[in-house]
Amino acid sequence: MNFQAILSSAPTRFPDQAPVACQGVEGAYSQQACLQIFRAPSITYCPTFESVFTAIENGECRYGVLPIENSLAGSVNSVYAQMFLHRFHIVRSTTLRIDHTLLALPGTRMDQVRDVYSHEQAIHQCSVYLAQHPEWRVNVCSNTAAAARMIRESGRPDAAAISSVRCAGLYDLNVLATDVQNNPHNHTRFICISKAPEIYPGADRTSLMLALPDKPGALYHLLGRFNELGINLTKLESRPIPGTDFEYMFYFDLDASVSSPAFAGLLQELDAELNRFTWLGSYSAV
Amino acid sequence: MNFQAILSSAPTRFPDQAPVACQGVEGAYSQQACLQIFRAPSITYCPTFESVFTAIENGECRYGVLPIENSLAGSVNSVYAQMFLHRFHIVRSTTLRIDHTLLALPGTRMDQVRDVYSHEQAIHQCSVYLAQHPEWRVNVCSNTAAAARMIRESGRPDAAAISSVRCAGLYDLNVLATDVQNNPHNHTRFICISKAPEIYPGADRTSLMLALPDKPGALYHLLGRFNELGINLTKLESRPIPGTDFEYMFYFDLDASVSSPAFAGLLQELDAELNRFTWLGSYSAV
Repeated sequence: MNFQAILSSAPTRFPDQAPVACQGVEGAYSQQACLQIFRAPSITYCPTFESVFTAIENGECRYGVLPIENSLAGSVNSVYAQMFLHRFHIVRSTTLRIDHTLLALPGTRMDQVRDVYSHEQAIHQCSVYLAQHPEWRVNVCSNTAAAARMIRESGRPDAAAISSVRCAGLYDLNVLATDVQNNPHNHTRFICISKAPEIYPGADRTSLMLALPDKPGALYHLLGRFNELGINLTKLESRPIPGTDFEYMFYFDLDASVSSPAFAGLLQELDAELNRFTWLGSYSAV
Repeated sequence: MNFQAILSSAPTRFPDQAPVACQGVEGAYSQQACLQIFRAPSITYCPTFESVFTAIENGECRYGVLPIENSLAGSVNSVYAQMFLHRFHIVRSTTLRIDHTLLALPGTRMDQVRDVYSHEQAIHQCSVYLAQHPEWRVNVCSNTAAAARMIRESGRPDAAAISSVRCAGLYDLNVLATDVQNNPHNHTRFICISKAPEIYPGADRTSLMLALPDKPGALYHLLGRFNELGINLTKLESRPIPGTDFEYMFYFDLDASVSSPAFAGLLQELDAELNRFTWLGSYSAV
């Protein structure tokens, strides 16, 4: 891991345009996140998170944009699991406000609705509103925008979707109800990943993944080394290593950049000392 | 928080029999976990995790048994979210091996299967096997055992369920394929919760939930206090506080018991110092 080489070979400006993989269909929250990160991305829509990683792996897309954490639901475990498997790099992050609305074909009245479609996470986040309508059947889709598109394509006057308000314009649907989520503080943080490491000017956050020897104080002593450099920890999670019975990896988000020689030096030391140490990337939030 | 009072008022023996709430239907992995914890529980099946908490809140059940962490998928975020809301107490934990099998009505052959039903987590854990059968439609259910029961009740010869092998006997189904999961190291840890705090002899693990002041080193200094007492940390997660925009709570599992006066004293200090501090329980794994 030669940070100096990565830093000196890095382009000075994050690209405006690039081929980017997103899960879902047009109108997905991932697309909105993608448009916050790139000025004019060329987006390939993938059916699953896994297939976003595959599109990057096989060179079809240079980048992928994926949800990593929601302020109500916590970490997106399956994205962390794929990051563990693929060891791609984080090059950007961005945060999006989630604004669930109830959409249906023009002409559909509330009292006609029998079936509601959405992603299981969105259904969970709208449970209070849905409980007020026990007469509705609630159906799970792969993505909130896919639910909206399905309502348009089916032509059904008795069905509605819980999706972003942007899907109303996109799929020519009417808004039956806004702000149907339980909690207005609903934000999702997205990461932009690439296969090769890329560090851009202004990168002020670093993500790490590592395993520690199983002895009391191991984590404490590691945090002491970050503390000596005055580094703030913004996120720390221990997550089971896939394929083991509850051995843990630690995932760190730190307010620190590898452009600091002291911090880069510490990472080099940890890389040499620890069996499993991965620098996931240094990046900025946009 | 008077640990001495809780300890001295605690019954000396964990109950053999009690009313317990579980998510799912008979044959659910939660039921198996419940039978590892209680000799003869009287189980009430609830449709969602949330309704397990409600059953305890309104006194219908004294205990609830819930999955908290899977060795492949990580923490069960929605159970952590409910623990944050309800502040119930953990009184036991247990770990279960997950053994997904493909079940269908007696007489159904593999080449007749058109629809496969299961819980979304199980579908995810069997993605490699399912990808070998692109001719199958994959459908999401609320629970793996509910999928098996539905196959029995529907009488459909073209449908199969991914469930525990125990559901074969329970719902009179045939095993079409065993070990259909991607990874044999598939374990889920369950917790048993109660409304009132209860500590039983042998409790050697403690779970805490707390918020720290947002300044560098806050977590480091807290870990230093655990380290002074020689306490091992078995799990640590920072999770967004529901209703905020990425303010974090820390969740700790520690190899320590409040029957140690030094540790109980430290918890009393933290309770006094920190704005948000919750002792979730001291318990043993069975």
